[in-house]
Amino acid sequence: MQELKRILSAEQPNINRALGCLTAELPQAARPVAEHLFAAGGKRLRPLLTLLTGRAFGCRDKGLYTMGAAIEMLHAATLLHDDILDDAATRRGQPTAHTLYGTAKVILAGDALLAKALLTVSAFGDTRLTASVSEAVMRTAVGEIAEFDILRDTGVSHQNYLEVVTGKTAWMLRASCELGALLAGVDEPLARAAADFGLELGVAFQMVDDALDFAPAETTGKPRGGDLREGKMTPPLLSYLASLSDDEARAFRAAFAEGAFSDEAVEAVSAAVVAGGHARRARDIAEEHLDRAAAALALFPESDERVVLRQLLGYIQHREH
Amino acid sequence: MQELKRILSAEQPNINRALGCLTAELPQAARPVAEHLFAAGGKRLRPLLTLLTGRAFGCRDKGLYTMGAAIEMLHAATLLHDDILDDAATRRGQPTAHTLYGTAKVILAGDALLAKALLTVSAFGDTRLTASVSEAVMRTAVGEIAEFDILRDTGVSHQNYLEVVTGKTAWMLRASCELGALLAGVDEPLARAAADFGLELGVAFQMVDDALDFAPAETTGKPRGGDLREGKMTPPLLSYLASLSDDEARAFRAAFAEGAFSDEAVEAVSAAVVAGGHARRARDIAEEHLDRAAAALALFPESDERVVLRQLLGYIQHREH
Repeated sequence: MQELKRILSAEQPNINRALGCLTAELPQAARPVAEHLFAAGGKRLRPLLTLLTGRAFGCRDKGLYTMGAAIEMLHAATLLHDDILDDAATRRGQPTAHTLYGTAKVILAGDALLAKALLTVSAFGDTRLTASVSEAVMRTAVGEIAEFDILRDTGVSHQNYLEVVTGKTAWMLRASCELGALLAGVDEPLARAAADFGLELGVAFQMVDDALDFAPAETTGKPRGGDLREGKMTPPLLSYLASLSDDEARAFRAAFAEGAFSDEAVEAVSAAVVAGGHARRARDIAEEHLDRAAAALALFPESDERVVLRQLLGYIQHREH
Repeated sequence: MQELKRILSAEQPNINRALGCLTAELPQAARPVAEHLFAAGGKRLRPLLTLLTGRAFGCRDKGLYTMGAAIEMLHAATLLHDDILDDAATRRGQPTAHTLYGTAKVILAGDALLAKALLTVSAFGDTRLTASVSEAVMRTAVGEIAEFDILRDTGVSHQNYLEVVTGKTAWMLRASCELGALLAGVDEPLARAAADFGLELGVAFQMVDDALDFAPAETTGKPRGGDLREGKMTPPLLSYLASLSDDEARAFRAAFAEGAFSDEAVEAVSAAVVAGGHARRARDIAEEHLDRAAAALALFPESDERVVLRQLLGYIQHREH
């Protein structure tokens, strides 16, 4: 894990520099919105994946930073639009962009960022790259629409859930890795391995996140049961619901559909989800996805970067907040 | 003009068929929103420009229809977002998408359409094409942001106005023509001529539209003075404002800045704009742009399509509603 942390802190300034260059190229009308979002920080996980994947396949091109910055800008565009949909007040501890600049300007700035990212990717002269990011944007949007469609629905299956998280979270991570591999000039099977690695990592990441949503606030520093309040049916809740008696399940479904859980009920259900081993079960499913990510990673050439990417899977597996 | 009308009615079904194919490929979550918008009709001017420009340069590839459909889908994405920004209730006589499907889903559907269009363009295997459409999306968004920034501002110059319309209207028409030329495999100078043609046509189109905004409702079938109500400073208003005495100008600026025009005032100013020759003056400036479009068109090879494109300039010049 040491190596992962070292690389992260060594590369974040380089990634931020590339992101700064790209932001400076934005037309003036859209720039302040982007600057505001980027100034609030962020882990820059997606550019890091592009960088590590590209290097694992032997690419030493500085273009990896530009590509990483482009995918972070794409991610930023989706965050700008998401915060409008959710009417979120803060992001990374700062006021959200639309509360400062207005909804209209931020919808448009999101479009401008998305387009700037695609323009940047186009400059690499390979339409496999533009296709990869375009597909990721489409899948992300579609995953989020699907999430809206199944909100407060207790008839959701694990498959429905997977479709949502594959879109809203995993596909952009998939693209981050695929772009690195394509920039390294690998053949189709290895580009596919990189894409699979990113996709499975992304699904696992979201699933662990959804399990941690029920962990006590003392562990995570965040109020527990947010998904329950918002009416999002995730693997821990699916497992919990399946464990209830018919009468209990009926009452739960009614309250979930109406969003009628009191603070006490949210606390009680969250505690029961953890005590009944349902959060653990969700993490077990996440581990299956991490195993698949590891299997895809095993196809990468032996390299320092492969070691770090392996550590990243371990980090996701053992995350406690 | 006969030939233009003939081509338009002959090609609209073909364009709509290509658009239908592309729409059918959209993921289910985004498809109904796109179908709703496309079912309301539309002139399909952008695909027609791609088709005519491509053919003028000798391209006989059916791919022109797919490319035209992609650019119409891109245009649709911007319309979906625009109607949210403006909180418009109807578009082409139908309820706007967000009033039917909700704002959140329609912001996301717009993103999905934008991405699907770029995915389609990527499949042509030439990053000059993806760069052209990405740049158009960015410029369109930035032009619209600029329009928000100068709303109710009487200090706007003709140059500010030009920046707005170049972005919000002309750049997508520029791309429509450039894409046709690039698909025909022309060299840089001719692709530039096609792009210039589309850009100048687009600026002229918007400027004539802005002049017609002051024409009596009996001529256009639309209430006059909409831009005045909305606080948009356009060439006819700039010319009118310059013709006022200091006192009159002061009163106008104050009312414009506050959006304080009564229905009677809007009618009176609109009538004065027309009577004072200010709408005519705006059309004169539009004609300069049409002349530049014609000069760019003169670089196209002699062809039936060039004749039709010339007629299109004449149609814009003489539009009365």
